[in-house]
Amino acid sequence: MGELTHFKDGRPRMVDVTQKPATHRTATAEARVKLTPEAAQALEAGGVGKGDPLAVAQLAGIFGAKKTAELIPLCHPLPLTGVEVRLEFRPEVPEVYITATVRTKAETGVEMEALTACAVAALNVYDMLKASSKALEITDLRLLHKAGGKSGEWRREG
Amino acid sequence: MGELTHFKDGRPRMVDVTQKPATHRTATAEARVKLTPEAAQALEAGGVGKGDPLAVAQLAGIFGAKKTAELIPLCHPLPLTGVEVRLEFRPEVPEVYITATVRTKAETGVEMEALTACAVAALNVYDMLKASSKALEITDLRLLHKAGGKSGEWRREG
Amino acid sequence: MGELTHFKDGRPRMVDVTQKPATHRTATAEARVKLTPEAAQALEAGGVGKGDPLAVAQLAGIFGAKKTAELIPLCHPLPLTGVEVRLEFRPEVPEVYITATVRTKAETGVEMEALTACAVAALNVYDMLKASSKALEITDLRLLHKAGGKSGEWRREG
Amino acid sequence: MGELTHFKDGRPRMVDVTQKPATHRTATAEARVKLTPEAAQALEAGGVGKGDPLAVAQLAGIFGAKKTAELIPLCHPLPLTGVEVRLEFRPEVPEVYITATVRTKAETGVEMEALTACAVAALNVYDMLKASSKALEITDLRLLHKAGGKSGEWRREG
Amino acid sequence: MGELTHFKDGRPRMVDVTQKPATHRTATAEARVKLTPEAAQALEAGGVGKGDPLAVAQLAGIFGAKKTAELIPLCHPLPLTGVEVRLEFRPEVPEVYITATVRTKAETGVEMEALTACAVAALNVYDMLKASSKALEITDLRLLHKAGGKSGEWRREG
Amino acid sequence: MGELTHFKDGRPRMVDVTQKPATHRTATAEARVKLTPEAAQALEAGGVGKGDPLAVAQLAGIFGAKKTAELIPLCHPLPLTGVEVRLEFRPEVPEVYITATVRTKAETGVEMEALTACAVAALNVYDMLKASSKALEITDLRLLHKAGGKSGEWRREG
Repeated sequence: MGELTHFKDGRPRMVDVTQKPATHRTATAEARVKLTPEAAQALEAGGVGKGDPLAVAQLAGIFGAKKTAELIPLCHPLPLTGVEVRLEFRPEVPEVYITATVRTKAETGVEMEALTACAVAALNVYDMLKASSKALEITDLRLLHKAGGKSGEWRREG
Repeated sequence: MGELTHFKDGRPRMVDVTQKPATHRTATAEARVKLTPEAAQALEAGGVGKGDPLAVAQLAGIFGAKKTAELIPLCHPLPLTGVEVRLEFRPEVPEVYITATVRTKAETGVEMEALTACAVAALNVYDMLKASSKALEITDLRLLHKAGGKSGEWRREG
Repeated sequence: MGELTHFKDGRPRMVDVTQKPATHRTATAEARVKLTPEAAQALEAGGVGKGDPLAVAQLAGIFGAKKTAELIPLCHPLPLTGVEVRLEFRPEVPEVYITATVRTKAETGVEMEALTACAVAALNVYDMLKASSKALEITDLRLLHKAGGKSGEWRREG
Repeated sequence: MGELTHFKDGRPRMVDVTQKPATHRTATAEARVKLTPEAAQALEAGGVGKGDPLAVAQLAGIFGAKKTAELIPLCHPLPLTGVEVRLEFRPEVPEVYITATVRTKAETGVEMEALTACAVAALNVYDMLKASSKALEITDLRLLHKAGGKSGEWRREG
Repeated sequence: MGELTHFKDGRPRMVDVTQKPATHRTATAEARVKLTPEAAQALEAGGVGKGDPLAVAQLAGIFGAKKTAELIPLCHPLPLTGVEVRLEFRPEVPEVYITATVRTKAETGVEMEALTACAVAALNVYDMLKASSKALEITDLRLLHKAGGKSGEWRREG
Repeated sequence: MGELTHFKDGRPRMVDVTQKPATHRTATAEARVKLTPEAAQALEAGGVGKGDPLAVAQLAGIFGAKKTAELIPLCHPLPLTGVEVRLEFRPEVPEVYITATVRTKAETGVEMEALTACAVAALNVYDMLKASSKALEITDLRLLHKAGGKSGEWRREG
């Protein structure tokens, strides 16, 4: 516990996983974009019968998963075998709720890819709504579940 | 109010800013990475006298600002003229508090660049601490201040 | 006429445009994806009331315009100020007709950016329909119009 | 037939191929750049004894194959094991005829990589000849052959 | 001996390695940044008790290894399984001595990745010290050792 | 003298150049790839009448200049207005001698772009010759000349 595996003798490194077997891995993350009433109204107006703003964010989130190793220096580049990103507009909160599930067969897990997909999707929601309100807020960006690898399954409590 | 400028006839587009003058722009954003006790302890242990894990996240955040137009499809590619990212470990909370300030001379603002810098820095903090605890949480990712451009200055209240 | 400006003494180069003034530039290109009956049917079935496959291609086309300088070695990296991509499903042909208009204020034109946006959008149409038919064909990828710069306006005839 | 595998419940996704075996895959695509007499003349003049403009396009095409997953949001990132791109100047047509063959060992095929290599090579031919003539046209960008994977071999007819 | 494997019939290609088995590979490279007295003094002043300039270069070197296939057209994109970069300030020379070790399980080796990591780290050292002196020099960028693959082990002599 | 401008309070940053005027800038760098007799022979054999291996490296060097801000975290992204890279095979040494000249109109200089172009070209020479000999060496990578900006002209002595 408490060890920083990305560091060796005080220097960051991409951890050597050469000897680990490539196994099936999956990770799911979530995020919320808290909307102001103005932003919720803009989203509602923009999302009916016309181009769906959340579709842009959803696609960008998938793209974002593939960009993970370019954003996180110590992340291994992984051959992703599946990415799903979902955005749900909850006008009663109001918020956009985002989840992303990423899969691979690799020596290391895809937690960062799932988190990055959510982050990028959330940033795109912000981008599309910022003309109506700048006071949006991205929150609760966190891991929900992971499976595969030596450390096994993990599920967020509560 | 409430108009989605990124859409025209229901289709997303990169808004035409050709006719706007290039002016000085700045934006500052913030984010928090909520730590578990295990992660706080790992960060404390790792950050003394040796390589500083937050230095990795800080540099990645600067890099991230430059990646904004690759992550956000409808964002204009901008020639950034300055990027500062700061990370502060607050063991008493415990959290890592992040701010990013981005500058440019351009036809459009750098809010998304400041937010992206914070998001990428926060994801890197998560990456470096996930071996000690997976229950970290990125929160309060939001704009603090922007200046420049026709819409002028904006500052987060409260 | 007939000179290859990208070459000097037989070696390719990125042409020096330092002394040219930055002026408003625009370019429009087009492309067609010729569909088989199976692909047309799949597009029709997929595009009603649900996620619109052409929306993916349209967004990818915008993204593609920003990637131009990464795909074309001798292209100058340009700060694009506007990108619009349109896709129209013409079931009676059947084809998907694509146009892209790109704008900038720069020392050189954006013909390649408009063509690249069309090419990337067309490749994405292919990608989404290839499960229904592999015999699709991208054709008529060409410039329709350009304006700005020393060579002035140009419009495709016929 | 007619199903859009990239969509699930109306939302685009990167299809989950985790359970599929990694097998040898190959795909070959083609494209033509239709030349005007001026462009053909420029190519002929530029390609004799000096730097060969088609060499630039050929190399860019190889580079382009590696960029596929960055251009096509729903494409899996694949570890390509071989890329060949050929360009042939046919002065009697006049046209530049392009073929690309891509290989991998993966869970999914490389049709999009072969098509992207051809598209990028063709765009580079256009880029190098556009000073002599803007009326060039990229056409017949299509798959010629694929092998490997559950759907087996496919060859373009006629 | 003396054959250029990247060429076939006089055209560059990404060599087909589809039939080769994926085996463990490792490569180590080195480089030196020769410092002027002014640069050595700046490095010494900047590197004590504050942010360490070499930490920036070290992290950039790791990032650089992952960029190899984007910089070297004929390089295969490889799923790196480990990257270590070390920088050592030798004030008595004065120089910064850099080594990089890269690992993968793949059909082809990682010599270029190790060399690229060193080159990028060295360029970053230059970047950070160029305000104090422009007369720095990157030298001795070369392979030290490789192992794995059909050609087996190789170690630099002398 | 001796100040590390990329650092402020011990933290790296992208220096704020917002207030500086955009002026014409140019920089020229050089590098050498020291060849073994085997490599020189392979280059000579490969470079006559067929595809020229140095043409690959030359084009990659131009591409590399555009990648500079992706390799050097604290570098400003600049709209390059001209890039020339030259490679000269000197069989009598034997070596490949490389120079790169980069131009821009910007708030900051292009020294790093010229050096990066040389480094990438040199790495590509290595890549193409490594089948004939692994003992090649990249050396003398350094700035020759820069002009423009407040610090004015600088030329390497000796």
